[in-house]
Amino acid sequence: MKLTGKKAIILVEDIYNEFEVWIPYYRLKEEGVEVVVVGSGSASEYHGKYGIPIRPDINASQVQFDDFDAIVIPGGYAPDKMRIHPEMVGLVKDMFNKGKVVASICHGGWMLASAGILKDKKTTSYIGIKDDMINAGARWEDAELVRDGNLITSRKPEDLPAFCRALIQAMQEA
Amino acid sequence: MKLTGKKAIILVEDIYNEFEVWIPYYRLKEEGVEVVVVGSGSASEYHGKYGIPIRPDINASQVQFDDFDAIVIPGGYAPDKMRIHPEMVGLVKDMFNKGKVVASICHGGWMLASAGILKDKKTTSYIGIKDDMINAGARWEDAELVRDGNLITSRKPEDLPAFCRALIQAMQEA
Amino acid sequence: MKLTGKKAIILVEDIYNEFEVWIPYYRLKEEGVEVVVVGSGSASEYHGKYGIPIRPDINASQVQFDDFDAIVIPGGYAPDKMRIHPEMVGLVKDMFNKGKVVASICHGGWMLASAGILKDKKTTSYIGIKDDMINAGARWEDAELVRDGNLITSRKPEDLPAFCRALIQAMQEA
Amino acid sequence: MKLTGKKAIILVEDIYNEFEVWIPYYRLKEEGVEVVVVGSGSASEYHGKYGIPIRPDINASQVQFDDFDAIVIPGGYAPDKMRIHPEMVGLVKDMFNKGKVVASICHGGWMLASAGILKDKKTTSYIGIKDDMINAGARWEDAELVRDGNLITSRKPEDLPAFCRALIQAMQEA
Amino acid sequence: MKLTGKKAIILVEDIYNEFEVWIPYYRLKEEGVEVVVVGSGSASEYHGKYGIPIRPDINASQVQFDDFDAIVIPGGYAPDKMRIHPEMVGLVKDMFNKGKVVASICHGGWMLASAGILKDKKTTSYIGIKDDMINAGARWEDAELVRDGNLITSRKPEDLPAFCRALIQAMQEA
Amino acid sequence: MKLTGKKAIILVEDIYNEFEVWIPYYRLKEEGVEVVVVGSGSASEYHGKYGIPIRPDINASQVQFDDFDAIVIPGGYAPDKMRIHPEMVGLVKDMFNKGKVVASICHGGWMLASAGILKDKKTTSYIGIKDDMINAGARWEDAELVRDGNLITSRKPEDLPAFCRALIQAMQEA
Repeated sequence: MKLTGKKAIILVEDIYNEFEVWIPYYRLKEEGVEVVVVGSGSASEYHGKYGIPIRPDINASQVQFDDFDAIVIPGGYAPDKMRIHPEMVGLVKDMFNKGKVVASICHGGWMLASAGILKDKKTTSYIGIKDDMINAGARWEDAELVRDGNLITSRKPEDLPAFCRALIQAMQEA
Repeated sequence: MKLTGKKAIILVEDIYNEFEVWIPYYRLKEEGVEVVVVGSGSASEYHGKYGIPIRPDINASQVQFDDFDAIVIPGGYAPDKMRIHPEMVGLVKDMFNKGKVVASICHGGWMLASAGILKDKKTTSYIGIKDDMINAGARWEDAELVRDGNLITSRKPEDLPAFCRALIQAMQEA
Repeated sequence: MKLTGKKAIILVEDIYNEFEVWIPYYRLKEEGVEVVVVGSGSASEYHGKYGIPIRPDINASQVQFDDFDAIVIPGGYAPDKMRIHPEMVGLVKDMFNKGKVVASICHGGWMLASAGILKDKKTTSYIGIKDDMINAGARWEDAELVRDGNLITSRKPEDLPAFCRALIQAMQEA
Repeated sequence: MKLTGKKAIILVEDIYNEFEVWIPYYRLKEEGVEVVVVGSGSASEYHGKYGIPIRPDINASQVQFDDFDAIVIPGGYAPDKMRIHPEMVGLVKDMFNKGKVVASICHGGWMLASAGILKDKKTTSYIGIKDDMINAGARWEDAELVRDGNLITSRKPEDLPAFCRALIQAMQEA
Repeated sequence: MKLTGKKAIILVEDIYNEFEVWIPYYRLKEEGVEVVVVGSGSASEYHGKYGIPIRPDINASQVQFDDFDAIVIPGGYAPDKMRIHPEMVGLVKDMFNKGKVVASICHGGWMLASAGILKDKKTTSYIGIKDDMINAGARWEDAELVRDGNLITSRKPEDLPAFCRALIQAMQEA
Repeated sequence: MKLTGKKAIILVEDIYNEFEVWIPYYRLKEEGVEVVVVGSGSASEYHGKYGIPIRPDINASQVQFDDFDAIVIPGGYAPDKMRIHPEMVGLVKDMFNKGKVVASICHGGWMLASAGILKDKKTTSYIGIKDDMINAGARWEDAELVRDGNLITSRKPEDLPAFCRALIQAMQEA
């Protein structure tokens, strides 16, 4: 287990993409990471696009971001719900600014835009939000995995193998 | 009937907000408008957030925009699906540039951002996409109805009375 | 706004037809009407045929009918649930007998039958309940809009433009 | 098996009450009856209130009613869909007039009203359609089982034991 | 009514097969049996494969098995949920060992296997669990109804007429 | 990537457990494995317990088992559907007898029982099918991961980190 002792956040809200939460969740656990599911505080249980339930361990307002090594931002339409919660957007911003690993996939890019951390950053995302990423200052590429320092981005579930590989590598390096 | 002889487009795609399509649809019909439901071409039938089906009359690629007086862009997550279809984004752009009435509500603002027509425009939208509107150049206000020339915007279903009133007024003036 | 100061009831129960509640609801609000959603008392939240939720403002037993100018009775199978509540049937009867505007669409006609107010009345309804309307004494026509004094009836959602137009006109005249 | 050689129709349409179709269906089979499921012709498969599918053996327009000994009319909202099909209403009328056993439960009474066979008949039904039954000429009682000649009626699923017992008895006597 | 005064248990848990609970339920009631719905205790309401709700009268841990004449074990995936509750498995075992009528249909056979009562018993079941029945010692046949002493088994809903006939006969003989 | 060039089968049928298919699917892809989804042939698309669709690449009858290094058998109720297809059961048997890696989780154990490969084997499974495993000859333990030669078994989704770790290790050793 390469990452025993490390701690990671996975953000959740309603209509999360089930693949983009549960694949990283179990992958990080396989490497010994303590994975903490963080909700917005709007509910005690959220449901994915297909209805798979997930209960957050804590809410964003309760997180001590410095205790963590990485944050994973899934897609689906959850980011559209997350970004109206300042504590969730702030958490992404703080983790980024502190050099922690920030990994966003698919529509997760909306949270990067709202956190204002995309200026001149090489990134990718779900192609439908490309305009929002570029308008937020990002340099957008259509690739399965784009890493720019502590920022890791991918486009869609099919990119999850590359996304998990890069996430684990970055947490090892951190 | 104040608008007999006028023609309006309502854009649809999957996960459209049922209120933001059907309220303007029937309201415009009450004033004698010929309402044409325009799809992206991705399906022959779309379903709203609650599953209410709607069949497009034609696809965006078949529209002669000059035949129309107004275009209504509903919210829900349909705009996230519309904006990957260049013909739909182009239709919004052409209608706007030709001075037609462009009326967008809720998440419809994503289509305005992708059409690149928000530079210095006074607008509103669903509060969750405020960052995307501002990043696209808009001057954003939290009001039930914002009109800037031929661009009409509102935030959410509760704003529909003001939205319909302004839409009908603008079509009368056009 | 033509009807500022006026008050209207919309009756709801489970399996209501979403179009036949929400289109008149927003249309009346556009004209400045104070719209009050009235439930049977059987639940604190009802769901339409497609599941769209609606919370009643008050229950039928709490309504002072003289405070209101009009009552709208939607269809779907909600009327089949309403008519076993004497307070709801009584409310329709009282509003009718007091000359208030009574507007019923689609299966709403069942409530007119149970209120016993159809004797020799010109009406229409969803075609499937035609026998029940005629057996209750009505003179039934297959038309988008039939008005007989303070009683307005239509058949189905497609008739909503004519239904709303007549409803607003009748409330203006009242 | 008390009824070997006998044939019975069960009418179906969408939103049928699952209990009021399948309980008589299997009960008649237990007594050796050949049970034929008859649809309106509007679909090749119907779904009950909970979605249980049923495929009709034939459509009403294909039925030789004299080949049959009994007809069962379930409730749910299926009768509201059946009664707009003249062949289904006609089948009920013909079976009744020919002295066959006509067994209706719950909302099935709407079909008796539309078939015009309730004049002075002792019956019962789901309490919500009591007004429609009385307006159609019936003498209505609130009892688990009412038999008037070849007409058997009950109110709701809880009455099915009495309903089945009476149905089998009537078919034996016929 | 052939079985007035007799008492029968129907076991339920989530994802029960609606036919295999409700057909025997109403059939036994038609013969005057007092039918008691027994749950595992895991919930106050269970839902069938299609979602039809059923509320248990009591839980398995509260049952005095000697008060009963028969036990019906439906299929669907409910038996997969029942068999992790020792009180439910124990109830089947006690009823069998005391010579009461034990009637199992479809996947109900899993409960017979877990109750360890299949050694050298002639039985049938849903064909997919045949290996589990044989591995538990049963002599398995592909027939609509197999009776071996006080053990009655069938395969699927289509066998319910034979299953109910045999269940009622066995309760009469008991 | 530790397993480039290796090939693995994942068996699917309706009501598969989404975690127990998709987590191993993406995990194996991360290590460079060519993952082939194999269906029973009963449909061109299957749906998990929550409805997530999966399209098989080929059907069991088309598989050349010697081309593969491992087979993964997920749980959910899919195994109850798989085991009535001799080609699927045969595939598990052949892979096991040829010393390939056979990895089963949760209710997957039913396929091991039907393949007759459990005699004296150390295994685990979902606790509800423990009797079926023991009756099929297995020595059953309640542990997150049990490996006996080329047979890897786990109990439930929470065991997936250990399950994936052991699966990858066994494929490396093979």
